[in-house]
Amino acid sequence: MKCRKCGAVAVIKMQQHKLALCEEHFLEWIPEQTERAIKKYKMFGPEDRILVAVSGGKDSLSLWDVLLRLGYQAEGLHIHLGINGGGYSDSSLEYVERFAATREEAKFQVVDLKAAYGQSVPELARTTYRGRKPCALCGLVKRHIMNRVAYEGGYDAIATGHNLDDEAAVLMQNTLRWQAGYLARQAPVLPSTHPRLARKVKPFIRLYERETAAYAIVRGIDYIYDECPYAVGSTTNFYKGILNQLESRSPGTKLSFYLSFLQARREGLFSRPGEALELNECQRCGQPTTAPGLCAFCRLWQRMDSR
Amino acid sequence: MKCRKCGAVAVIKMQQHKLALCEEHFLEWIPEQTERAIKKYKMFGPEDRILVAVSGGKDSLSLWDVLLRLGYQAEGLHIHLGINGGGYSDSSLEYVERFAATREEAKFQVVDLKAAYGQSVPELARTTYRGRKPCALCGLVKRHIMNRVAYEGGYDAIATGHNLDDEAAVLMQNTLRWQAGYLARQAPVLPSTHPRLARKVKPFIRLYERETAAYAIVRGIDYIYDECPYAVGSTTNFYKGILNQLESRSPGTKLSFYLSFLQARREGLFSRPGEALELNECQRCGQPTTAPGLCAFCRLWQRMDSR
Repeated sequence: MKCRKCGAVAVIKMQQHKLALCEEHFLEWIPEQTERAIKKYKMFGPEDRILVAVSGGKDSLSLWDVLLRLGYQAEGLHIHLGINGGGYSDSSLEYVERFAATREEAKFQVVDLKAAYGQSVPELARTTYRGRKPCALCGLVKRHIMNRVAYEGGYDAIATGHNLDDEAAVLMQNTLRWQAGYLARQAPVLPSTHPRLARKVKPFIRLYERETAAYAIVRGIDYIYDECPYAVGSTTNFYKGILNQLESRSPGTKLSFYLSFLQARREGLFSRPGEALELNECQRCGQPTTAPGLCAFCRLWQRMDSR
Repeated sequence: MKCRKCGAVAVIKMQQHKLALCEEHFLEWIPEQTERAIKKYKMFGPEDRILVAVSGGKDSLSLWDVLLRLGYQAEGLHIHLGINGGGYSDSSLEYVERFAATREEAKFQVVDLKAAYGQSVPELARTTYRGRKPCALCGLVKRHIMNRVAYEGGYDAIATGHNLDDEAAVLMQNTLRWQAGYLARQAPVLPSTHPRLARKVKPFIRLYERETAAYAIVRGIDYIYDECPYAVGSTTNFYKGILNQLESRSPGTKLSFYLSFLQARREGLFSRPGEALELNECQRCGQPTTAPGLCAFCRLWQRMDSR
């Protein structure tokens, strides 16, 4: 297998693009593709300050690396969630620190959930979720903190490392239930709908998971290999497996599933009158919420306090 | 496992309905469900003359049996396609004949493609498809003949044995490519859009494939077990396998995938201006077609003639 650009030995073949590349050209191709997505979906420009959510995994560290290589003002935010008695979260943080230590321009801040709010995700889940999987709660907590940090720091956009496999899995999940509301909103860019909510962007939206992993490896980015213990056996992973079966039978299925969805929506496939959501400011933290009094994040802590 | 209705030993459990039934009650339940679908989707009434497309497989023979049990005027149409040197088609026909021999009210007619038009499906495929799989061609041929026979015989509706697994597999295929046109049309009932096109109905639309198979077995209907040789490894079968994986992880997924799709469409999820197709009459056979001169069926034979 030879690199299409120079004929050297290829390190990766991307069936869906009928493209094989050597190390050097693969390391060029990923930023090119990312830049294309940033421009195509009008995510941000060089003047914007970007807050990159970095977990310490392959996607977020690769994204941060690529954005810095492309010259964007990309600063990191790591949220320490206190998972696995803190052990999983401690190592995640170490990978972020190690990454930043080798790059002068890589500035980042850490929010430690337990230190800042009094409880880790598993502790919160134990009290309020009665031992159920804390994934939804964890998502809520992360969104709240990302929004707060972006607002307080005056960032223009929040970038996350979601790749095409992530998006296609969510799309499949929403499609199997034909959830109109979710289908209307799932997008590479979520525009800001309130002065306190930064735009959310996913620059890796067109890259397969194996490509972001390959990028991290070839680029020498050390990342946390272990999945979050709560993600093992998750529905999202199950759908990713299903999509990989579809992909093996017919290369390009994941990409075309997602892109033809965006295309169909642009062409008005889901052109039903969208219910404009009214946003109030949370009485406790000030963040926008569709709830009348407290936002979901503050209700969570209130439930804790009232125990 | 006990029958929910009488406590006797159950022969089948339908996870998606949390329902186990004994032989006797299962043989009642299938016609009840079929009748419900016929009424819900306004398929036909007792005054209508129904042409049932019977291949000799479990779905179509079970459907014919159920419609007769429910007292509908259901007559069979078997199309002999000449598959597998005629062998597969010969045995298919035998199962239809054997079924009809045991039921006085079961009238049917046979159209032999080769006898009526000069070539079998594999022969047609060899000349016009250059050895590609003849499935699309076979579908075209069957639709044409069903329409012709229904029109000439003055039938009100054409009923086919499509079950939920069939429909969900097609839906998944159309959804993976977001094919707006197909998504707009896929339905339990296709109304007649031209005096020469009978309404098409699928009374088994809410039944799982394993239920129609179980019905045939419990009811003692002998059907052709072998799949059509061309269907082996087909895309539809692949999607059925995928859907069965989803179903095992979360029972009811196939049913809710299809029903929530119908629901979402009713609520206007796909409310995009539908292109009304203009129908002309084919210059050769008179059947309605969107093509300007000859219909696809007649073009096929024209291509043969011009060789």
